[in-house]
Amino acid sequence: MNDIAVILGNQLLSQDFEQAGGGTKLEQAKHLASLYASADQAIVVLSDLVFNKSYVYYGSAAAALGLQGQLSGAQIDSIWEEEVFARIHPDDLQAKHMQELRFFHFLKGISPAERSDYHVVRKLRMYNAMNRYVPVLHRMYYLLDLRNDHTEMALCLYGFDHFPSDHFEGRIVNARTGEAVPAGDGRANMLSRREQEVLSLIDSGKASKEIAGTLCISLNTVNRHRQNILEKLRVSNSIEACRVARSFNWIG
Amino acid sequence: MNDIAVILGNQLLSQDFEQAGGGTKLEQAKHLASLYASADQAIVVLSDLVFNKSYVYYGSAAAALGLQGQLSGAQIDSIWEEEVFARIHPDDLQAKHMQELRFFHFLKGISPAERSDYHVVRKLRMYNAMNRYVPVLHRMYYLLDLRNDHTEMALCLYGFDHFPSDHFEGRIVNARTGEAVPAGDGRANMLSRREQEVLSLIDSGKASKEIAGTLCISLNTVNRHRQNILEKLRVSNSIEACRVARSFNWIG
Repeated sequence: MNDIAVILGNQLLSQDFEQAGGGTKLEQAKHLASLYASADQAIVVLSDLVFNKSYVYYGSAAAALGLQGQLSGAQIDSIWEEEVFARIHPDDLQAKHMQELRFFHFLKGISPAERSDYHVVRKLRMYNAMNRYVPVLHRMYYLLDLRNDHTEMALCLYGFDHFPSDHFEGRIVNARTGEAVPAGDGRANMLSRREQEVLSLIDSGKASKEIAGTLCISLNTVNRHRQNILEKLRVSNSIEACRVARSFNWIG
Repeated sequence: MNDIAVILGNQLLSQDFEQAGGGTKLEQAKHLASLYASADQAIVVLSDLVFNKSYVYYGSAAAALGLQGQLSGAQIDSIWEEEVFARIHPDDLQAKHMQELRFFHFLKGISPAERSDYHVVRKLRMYNAMNRYVPVLHRMYYLLDLRNDHTEMALCLYGFDHFPSDHFEGRIVNARTGEAVPAGDGRANMLSRREQEVLSLIDSGKASKEIAGTLCISLNTVNRHRQNILEKLRVSNSIEACRVARSFNWIG
């Protein structure tokens, strides 16, 4: 599992689900997932973030992608479909998880009414049954509980890309307007401007006292920012924080 | 309405539906159509070929495409969604219908078990609410009744193309294998080789007697071929037959 997936998993699963309903909504989502799998012949993974489980539906494309012999609707005790991930090009898998992390935070930054307009699309490479990479189109939807601002479920679809290109890239798209969210959209950044400044200075090797002097703030404030950064990025030290933030282009 | 749409419509609607079931299947298909519209924000049209009606479901993309104010699930007394067609670039609309006609015949030429693997994908241009062309991805599925070899329903989805290109083109694809059906695939040709020869000679201005001489067959046989060609293409005379066959590249 790549580092970004670990960070993303921690964030998805550590939401406060105390009031989560589940039940009927999960059954409806399973029904939608199985319909998608049979209509598009796609591989459809419904991940339940409340109970840390997934349900995998295999359309007929699964066999050609080397995922033969699976029971449709089978339950996995994880939000990650490792068996599918193992067939995705590692670079594309990491980029996919990075985008899903960005998408998770992006949705929190916009109004609840807007959220259902957005999803993620990505062109990626997957091994086929002959262990050759073939172009696949991945779509991902977060199913939200708007009452308590949770991302309760994720729906991932993998199907052959019928208009392949040489670019393997992903986009957060607004299906209502047709627009893609620009990669540098500030709303998708989970760090405040001040936190970015602090982290940039940490990244350039400065100590907390120097950072306080440079930004004309107290040492206490610097330390509070440090703490918030670690919490927001769900990492345990500044070196990890810098690496994650750099991978998102949040710090230069 | 373009000529190809007229030919396609005649063929779709003139199937022998005497034993058609309808009922439950239609309700299930309506449910699928409405789910697609809300999950993908797409415009989804379910056409019932048995009763010559359509049901239109508008996801939130409809407003940006200038199709505002429609009731989701509204019934149209036609298999054609004229209001949507009016917003499609005329070249793309004609190419779309031509491909659907080809697809209809292609499905008849393969084994029933294979048929549900295939659908049509197309990149096309649609007017948006500001009357500017924007790239749209169209998917079309024929819902088949395998017992009596009918195409009972058609499901058309229109959504923004999130990976647009400069090529506006369509493909009949096999979602199980990921392969596209080659444009010149003989199975998609509804005329036999001999019928093509006869029609080519008609197209070059030859009379039946000359054709009989050239192909070393009797005048009766030529006339039988002529009759079969008109029936297969559902046209009323040889000039129309030549035009349709030429538009499919079935004759040189």
